[in-house]
Amino acid sequence: MTEEPILERLFRVVASRQGASLERSYTAKLFQRGRLKIAQKVGEEATETVIAAVAQDKAAIASESADLIYHLMVLWADCGLEPKDIWAELERREGISGLEEKSSRTP
Amino acid sequence: MTEEPILERLFRVVASRQGASLERSYTAKLFQRGRLKIAQKVGEEATETVIAAVAQDKAAIASESADLIYHLMVLWADCGLEPKDIWAELERREGISGLEEKSSRTP
Amino acid sequence: MTEEPILERLFRVVASRQGASLERSYTAKLFQRGRLKIAQKVGEEATETVIAAVAQDKAAIASESADLIYHLMVLWADCGLEPKDIWAELERREGISGLEEKSSRTP
Amino acid sequence: MTEEPILERLFRVVASRQGASLERSYTAKLFQRGRLKIAQKVGEEATETVIAAVAQDKAAIASESADLIYHLMVLWADCGLEPKDIWAELERREGISGLEEKSSRTP
Repeated sequence: MTEEPILERLFRVVASRQGASLERSYTAKLFQRGRLKIAQKVGEEATETVIAAVAQDKAAIASESADLIYHLMVLWADCGLEPKDIWAELERREGISGLEEKSSRTP
Repeated sequence: MTEEPILERLFRVVASRQGASLERSYTAKLFQRGRLKIAQKVGEEATETVIAAVAQDKAAIASESADLIYHLMVLWADCGLEPKDIWAELERREGISGLEEKSSRTP
Repeated sequence: MTEEPILERLFRVVASRQGASLERSYTAKLFQRGRLKIAQKVGEEATETVIAAVAQDKAAIASESADLIYHLMVLWADCGLEPKDIWAELERREGISGLEEKSSRTP
Repeated sequence: MTEEPILERLFRVVASRQGASLERSYTAKLFQRGRLKIAQKVGEEATETVIAAVAQDKAAIASESADLIYHLMVLWADCGLEPKDIWAELERREGISGLEEKSSRTP
């Protein structure tokens, strides 16, 4: 039997917090504060990931990346998206031309 | 037989581009430009995700989230991290107290 | 005779580019691409300022800060704001309690 | 007699908080928390400005822009920069070719 991948499991927990009691759930509070607040948290965690990367703090990069992915999932749930929608997007690109569909862009 | 999850597969492709020919690979070019440039791309894609979310453009949120995750993986590879390091961080939190370890923080 | 301060002078030039010929003006092109694109540039320049600060590159901090302020002015013009609206906001805070109106916030 | 422009006056107050008592000064606390925290605040306020712009909330754009400029000044002071260093950068560009030195770049 295959264990459900961590991100799918995490997303199910996150999504289940929509409309849940605010008492003990950070996630429920975040949904309650709404889209702009959730987007703001995504921006903040990205900034912290960037800072950890430039400061070469490997443990902080892992920790801030985890925070970023968690808040990104809250955003997806709030927008009616599921991880598979984003995976499909990634697979679509891989399908067209590997990771190289961007090769004409200047990084 | 279980298929390898998309993010792990994507990461293996990304990591394989370190030191690869710059000719056709956007990813190889990005590694070559270095940590600061990669971090900058993570910040830019996060900003685009935030803008898509506030503009309520669902297709753009999926597309920009995919870009963000892709560039995050380039950053992880550049820093010597693997997806499982970030998953471990997410599982550690889940283990302690579900997603609610943050419940004392104000969102 | 007092010279007009640099930011006010810069803003007048920026604002005059609204609706100007796209031929030779970066600013006119930016206005033409619209609010979301301008906001994205503000986010990008802020990320570059943050990276320069963490990387301790003093010349880059000055240069990226100048880029950030320039794009912020394009955003103000696009939103129908003028520098004096932002100065008034800064003076209002100074008036209430010096810079310390935020002292109860945790930084 | 010319009044000192608001940004120069604000900067002098900000800079005077370096090493000041932490008791009542948000600014002194921010300096004490250091460069990475100050850079993080710049990133956060930029994200909030971007969100306000996309949400078309004009009062919030003015307010978040003021917050962004204030935190940018704390960053300048922490890095040993003064407003005139950034103004010089803006004037240098204006001198070369007006605002159009960027005209060859794609916005």
